[in-house]
Amino acid sequence: MNNSYYAVIFSSQKAIDDDGYEIMAEKMVKLAEKQKGFIGIESVRGSDGKGITISYWQTLEDIKQWKINTEHLLAQKLGKTKWYDSYTTRICKVEREYTHPADNK
Amino acid sequence: MNNSYYAVIFSSQKAIDDDGYEIMAEKMVKLAEKQKGFIGIESVRGSDGKGITISYWQTLEDIKQWKINTEHLLAQKLGKTKWYDSYTTRICKVEREYTHPADNK
Repeated sequence: MNNSYYAVIFSSQKAIDDDGYEIMAEKMVKLAEKQKGFIGIESVRGSDGKGITISYWQTLEDIKQWKINTEHLLAQKLGKTKWYDSYTTRICKVEREYTHPADNK
Repeated sequence: MNNSYYAVIFSSQKAIDDDGYEIMAEKMVKLAEKQKGFIGIESVRGSDGKGITISYWQTLEDIKQWKINTEHLLAQKLGKTKWYDSYTTRICKVEREYTHPADNK
């Protein structure tokens, strides 16, 4: 990939009570995929409730628009008040990447 | 945090045979913590073997020096030939961050 792009790193610790979380998480992935500038998303959660989700976007403006998407705002509010004990969001510019086995990007 | 810093996103899929992996992974975290410019590391692996590890560094030069650390080079070689089916490494500049609950950085 020759063009620069951006990553949103979302590191979280889930609360014990996560009623409704899985359904919303799946819904948000499907919604993100439809947004302008969306490149991809990867997510891992361990058995201890610690999770890292990274979404990739073409521009900072795309990230901003996704952040203020109405349905996403509702999910963020529920995340803050209900599903997560704590989280950190980092907006990053991807400077370069290496893949093994090597791909043809 | 007011100063800019960098993230190394390492997304991997572990092979089924991961003999020796855990010991090496712990060793590498301890070694990374001793390197110049090291800020922190977070790592999550799911039950399906998909993992994301992110280490944070003060400068690109710190990342370069860690990449060519002799013991780390050995670990990278074993990772490539033995422990991982595939992986992608992304070097990123952290543009900004938000934490909840808010911290005092």
